[in-house]
Amino acid sequence: MKFNQYSRMIVPYRTQVSELQGIGFLDQLVTPQTSLNDLWLSFIYKSFPQAQSQSTLKEMVSNLLATPTQNVLEYIDQKTVDAAPFYTVGLQLLGFTCGDDFKVDQPLQTMKDFNLLYHEKLNNIEELVGAWYDLLNTRGKNGQILLDALAAQGYFLPLYDLPIAQKPLLFNGKSQPVFATDDLIREVVYIESSLDTDHDGKRDLLKAEILRPSDANNGLKVPAVYTASPYNQGTNDEAGDKMMHNVDQPLTRKEPNELQYEDIKYQQDTEELPPERPVKGTTQQAEETFGREFSYTLNDYLAARGFAIVYAAGIGTRGSQGVRNCGSPAETASTIAIIEWLAGNRRAFTNKTDNIEIKAWWCNGSVAMTGRSYLGTLATAAATTGVTGLKTIISEAAISSWYDYYRDNGLVIAPGGFPGEDADVLAEECFSRQLDGADHLKVKPFFGQQLAQITRGQDRTTGDYNTFWDARNYLKDVANVKCDVLMVHGVNDWNVKPRNVYNFYRALAKLPVTKKLILHQGQHIYINAFRSLDYSEMINLWLTNKLYDVANNADQILPAVLVQDNVQPETWTAYPDWDKTEVKQQNLYFDQEKLTENQPAKTATVSFSDHLSDEQFAKYRQNFENWRNTILADHASDLSDKRLLFKTQPLANDELLRGAAHLKLKVASNQDHGMLSVMLVDYGTAKRLGVSPTVLARKSISEGYHWREDDLNEFQLTKKTPFKMVSKGHINLQNRTANYKTDDLQADEFYDIEFDLQPTFYHLPQGHQLGLVVYSTDMEMTVRGNEKINYTLDLSECQLTLKTSKY
Amino acid sequence: MKFNQYSRMIVPYRTQVSELQGIGFLDQLVTPQTSLNDLWLSFIYKSFPQAQSQSTLKEMVSNLLATPTQNVLEYIDQKTVDAAPFYTVGLQLLGFTCGDDFKVDQPLQTMKDFNLLYHEKLNNIEELVGAWYDLLNTRGKNGQILLDALAAQGYFLPLYDLPIAQKPLLFNGKSQPVFATDDLIREVVYIESSLDTDHDGKRDLLKAEILRPSDANNGLKVPAVYTASPYNQGTNDEAGDKMMHNVDQPLTRKEPNELQYEDIKYQQDTEELPPERPVKGTTQQAEETFGREFSYTLNDYLAARGFAIVYAAGIGTRGSQGVRNCGSPAETASTIAIIEWLAGNRRAFTNKTDNIEIKAWWCNGSVAMTGRSYLGTLATAAATTGVTGLKTIISEAAISSWYDYYRDNGLVIAPGGFPGEDADVLAEECFSRQLDGADHLKVKPFFGQQLAQITRGQDRTTGDYNTFWDARNYLKDVANVKCDVLMVHGVNDWNVKPRNVYNFYRALAKLPVTKKLILHQGQHIYINAFRSLDYSEMINLWLTNKLYDVANNADQILPAVLVQDNVQPETWTAYPDWDKTEVKQQNLYFDQEKLTENQPAKTATVSFSDHLSDEQFAKYRQNFENWRNTILADHASDLSDKRLLFKTQPLANDELLRGAAHLKLKVASNQDHGMLSVMLVDYGTAKRLGVSPTVLARKSISEGYHWREDDLNEFQLTKKTPFKMVSKGHINLQNRTANYKTDDLQADEFYDIEFDLQPTFYHLPQGHQLGLVVYSTDMEMTVRGNEKINYTLDLSECQLTLKTSKY
Repeated sequence: MKFNQYSRMIVPYRTQVSELQGIGFLDQLVTPQTSLNDLWLSFIYKSFPQAQSQSTLKEMVSNLLATPTQNVLEYIDQKTVDAAPFYTVGLQLLGFTCGDDFKVDQPLQTMKDFNLLYHEKLNNIEELVGAWYDLLNTRGKNGQILLDALAAQGYFLPLYDLPIAQKPLLFNGKSQPVFATDDLIREVVYIESSLDTDHDGKRDLLKAEILRPSDANNGLKVPAVYTASPYNQGTNDEAGDKMMHNVDQPLTRKEPNELQYEDIKYQQDTEELPPERPVKGTTQQAEETFGREFSYTLNDYLAARGFAIVYAAGIGTRGSQGVRNCGSPAETASTIAIIEWLAGNRRAFTNKTDNIEIKAWWCNGSVAMTGRSYLGTLATAAATTGVTGLKTIISEAAISSWYDYYRDNGLVIAPGGFPGEDADVLAEECFSRQLDGADHLKVKPFFGQQLAQITRGQDRTTGDYNTFWDARNYLKDVANVKCDVLMVHGVNDWNVKPRNVYNFYRALAKLPVTKKLILHQGQHIYINAFRSLDYSEMINLWLTNKLYDVANNADQILPAVLVQDNVQPETWTAYPDWDKTEVKQQNLYFDQEKLTENQPAKTATVSFSDHLSDEQFAKYRQNFENWRNTILADHASDLSDKRLLFKTQPLANDELLRGAAHLKLKVASNQDHGMLSVMLVDYGTAKRLGVSPTVLARKSISEGYHWREDDLNEFQLTKKTPFKMVSKGHINLQNRTANYKTDDLQADEFYDIEFDLQPTFYHLPQGHQLGLVVYSTDMEMTVRGNEKINYTLDLSECQLTLKTSKY
Repeated sequence: MKFNQYSRMIVPYRTQVSELQGIGFLDQLVTPQTSLNDLWLSFIYKSFPQAQSQSTLKEMVSNLLATPTQNVLEYIDQKTVDAAPFYTVGLQLLGFTCGDDFKVDQPLQTMKDFNLLYHEKLNNIEELVGAWYDLLNTRGKNGQILLDALAAQGYFLPLYDLPIAQKPLLFNGKSQPVFATDDLIREVVYIESSLDTDHDGKRDLLKAEILRPSDANNGLKVPAVYTASPYNQGTNDEAGDKMMHNVDQPLTRKEPNELQYEDIKYQQDTEELPPERPVKGTTQQAEETFGREFSYTLNDYLAARGFAIVYAAGIGTRGSQGVRNCGSPAETASTIAIIEWLAGNRRAFTNKTDNIEIKAWWCNGSVAMTGRSYLGTLATAAATTGVTGLKTIISEAAISSWYDYYRDNGLVIAPGGFPGEDADVLAEECFSRQLDGADHLKVKPFFGQQLAQITRGQDRTTGDYNTFWDARNYLKDVANVKCDVLMVHGVNDWNVKPRNVYNFYRALAKLPVTKKLILHQGQHIYINAFRSLDYSEMINLWLTNKLYDVANNADQILPAVLVQDNVQPETWTAYPDWDKTEVKQQNLYFDQEKLTENQPAKTATVSFSDHLSDEQFAKYRQNFENWRNTILADHASDLSDKRLLFKTQPLANDELLRGAAHLKLKVASNQDHGMLSVMLVDYGTAKRLGVSPTVLARKSISEGYHWREDDLNEFQLTKKTPFKMVSKGHINLQNRTANYKTDDLQADEFYDIEFDLQPTFYHLPQGHQLGLVVYSTDMEMTVRGNEKINYTLDLSECQLTLKTSKY
């Protein structure tokens, strides 16, 4: 076990004392004369809120070993407090088992091995208070800090009734769970957008579900954590599945053109908007509640800690008006309408009929956005509007340009695992008004037209960047970003590929906002229930700062770039940036099956065919893992002549591969069209992290006392594998100049192409070899026409440029 | 989708009316003059408890389609109520989507296809009320009845404050969720057992965690649903893993003996018991609470419905005293101590120190037990004591004799998937006092001795039934059973094998108690979150009857034996018994590779070797699935000479295989020891149900308003497989007479053996072939000495006897 904590705030002794008093851990006056062991014991005694009598408490405390032969009460009689017994007891409070998890006679060594903060000396009150303060902030076996574990036992119950002037209650810069989740107010409002996307002559009303502390009814103004999730009100999975496009189609030759970006640039529509609804009255009381929202456990954690949680699914979803149009500017406007209401700059009504206005009177006007994938995407979209009230976004696995989600360099490129999906499919899936039979009836014909328009606009024929995609490119508007940004992405996310976060991260660099980046080793996942990382606490620190305006140094404390190591499990490392500092550029040249540091004297041309037998094709189009493992294998297989493989020498030292590799190739197709795909591969037999995290303990994470739960998980090493795919790239040979312009392509003629692979942050261990596999049809991402095309590379004009740093 | 509901109570119109009034669905006086469509609309209006104003309500109702072109409000203006619109609306309320899940113009056909109850005519008030009453009891897409789905939206909130005289609130014979789960009282008591298993000179105190409705504080007496779970306070997984026995050992020849059962019969110890603790005071107020118990979602469902939930882990677990001894009579006594306290016949204290007595003053004295595996086992153990207060047990996947869990016919036979596990390992794993470091210190030496005693007693050397196992055989005491019994078991449970439930079921047959049996197609799983079966409602009906003494005909309504079909998904069928009625006995004879209905004229002897190459052995001992798939394959493989395979002709008709197949073999070993294993196999390429249920929707089952949740799941057909293992059997050739007696065995001499295979209830489809595979070493269950032994069968003296019935 190894723990990584980045949310810890270093505070002086006086602050420690007052915070411990604030949360009720210190009720006595602490003076230098206070008995050390009395104080320690009083701390321990307070760590069992489930005990409601002295006898019960004593029984529980006496179960704690202090030394290999004494329980804590026996030890305490000796009137000393040494670090060893302190951490023996501490480890037990943190949920570790004597003997199994740690040696009772070596607790300090265990603290060190687990990468937990500890103090070697406890010679005076100040040191003891400091050690206890830190222990409360230390993560335990169940992946929560001790104070959160105590909260799950009801520690904070007596503080639920604190005067609102004392809320939020802070400890170590973070808001504590002193908000009764049993009493959360759940209400629905309908926000009037400045849109009429369903063309019914009325502005689209947008349903928002709110969970907020009841303290708000007593005068506490709380900030809002808002998740814009198009999936939230249900999805049309079956209808979406039926719409999936057939990818078993040949790549079509495109007519060359001379398009410039200006030719395809998106211009905002200036449709006339129906008037606002008249306000016929106002109220503070909503008229609709709900049983269970579709929640995100990070939000659940925050709901117990004084943040209102707001979910809205947006235009075209169940309960709202309008239609979906997949990442369009209208969806962005629909997303920020909720923020505008929360910040007091837009109207909402209690229902869709009566025009009774209801304000977010309980909100302090500060809003953060959370969520992953489409949800994080809409957070990104919202940030690029600079909307007032939005103080930060935490965008996880977010799309920054929809072209980078569904296309690449003039090719239709599916999100990994979903060949045939496209913007129209997603629009249909999220159009959950369809779930309300009678509501659907009203809007069905118009949505049909809308869908046809999306299908035309996305243009699967050319795969080119066009006005449709330009309208869905948030990167163009990054200059508008006024809020602080915390980005999270998996370097193995082949659904929302890493380029999305990379481009956003790079575009933000110039702006005067705080930006943080976390890169994990997962695919398209949430990371708030990892045992090894204090992600929830980091978010708490961040949001307590951004939304409650608490000066907790969140900007300084959280690392600029935090990266999970892919070799050592449970290891996270802070870096100043993704791929700038201490990074060196390295050119690799191509030889027969080799990547070399120096340009070889002689190189040849090498060819491969993209065509499979019917049997091969049938086999590999079904099983992507099998296809990937076969085409990447460095031994002979039935796919080894369908690709070219180039490998470096075994590495002399561990290296970090950072950012995007850049590839130049000189290539000829024997047809008048063609595409290339490449994979960057780490070759070397080794145990590697699993594809998905392993669940360590079901429901063991408590988001608050008698509140919701989450499964604790972690990436673990699996059995040895011979290689691992690190990055990918794809290009249409007719998009050599730009993704929006079609170049000519003559059969059997050589052309220079160059493009970036997907960025990464990858630890290449010593002795491994870096490989590049060049092929064409990508079973899981490109069209799969199984055409008879041969490709030839002129190796003398090929070059791979990497950015690396020392490990 | 197909639904199966067995919990429905048929009640007359007057009862329907009064129950609908009771739950607040009917507040108007219904007369024959009441307008049909007004009444229907009032029902619909009441189905949206989340709406808190008329406008909101109207908006929600207007989203419901009544006909392909009209919403329900438009339709209702026509003043008629036809069955089609009624069920179109009904299906939407049940969560089905117009178009995707059902055709709006054919709702009755959908009700029929889904196997949901519907009424063809709604011509008068009585028919409409009846139809609505039934609709509230109808399961929807999320696997809950409509009334439970409404409860999840807060429908019952206004009834939380009902006078206690009106609680429990009944509808259709079941207790409704009118108990505020936010206010549940959570308390711990320590029950004094009549045991001193840790020999510390004091009676063992047993910790019990109780969750009970706060209404109890206002005078409501509630029954208790009690789960005895040794896992509940944590487990020592690592220590247990370390103790796993090495199974890669040869089978040892045993010295023949002439033991009789009387020689090994267990006699109860008569140890002297320390005196009871003196009572120094009494209280109604507990002194300890808890944050989160380790819960079972069925109990969560019941907790919202007026049943107190009690968890106790028993002797030797964290918080309790004593030591574990794996299924011993002391564990049974420890289990029933809790019931004795609940029924007022035993003392409990508020803590372990002060001797302040606390009674279960809130309990009506009626107790049920629930839980699976070891938990169900202890319920079975408790039932066989006839303890007062225990009204019923719901034993799921329960052991009825520990010999049938860890042994078979003179062999050490591991629970599937856990080779090397044994009673001592389980005792160690459950000895969770070890988790409290200082408490462990006190009891460690004694528990070490205890463990050594278990290791000796279980006797892995002979695998014979002995006094140790006889003490752990609950079947001997079945005559004591006084409570009603509901058994649940998976016919594919190779952990707790089906013989355990079969023997208990058969032993109960003679007793004047009600017994019910449910056989599902799962392995070792819970079945309370299946979409296709109303298991939770069945349990509600059962417990409302057994514990609240409500005359709801539960005994008559629930089927005697309910079996999930293994061919058709979502299909459950009621039978009068497991293997008696309409069952015919069928003898099959052995020929070369054949099982024949008539004894063949000539048969030969056939042999196989049990010995594998080192490489084979290394491969197959690691991967059980691979081993099973290879040894069962009916084509040549590297294991086909390690077994004999006999198959019937393809079946002319579908058949049901019921109960235990009986096998006679004439066999010789070429050594002076030996063992045979057999598998009964369904051969025939077909789509079959998956090994585990598929999760259909996460957290979609609400156990009550703002209460806990469960994942909805169901067995689904997977891709085609060539065969499926149906049953297994194992025997030591030296246990031909009895499992407690060792017979002689001479090398190369033929002996007659006969034994029962594990019982089953299996649907063999037409065209399939039944096969029997005879082999010796079972990679996942027996010892694996990889000895050079050859076995020879004399086919003329072999016979397989089956019990079958028509499908």
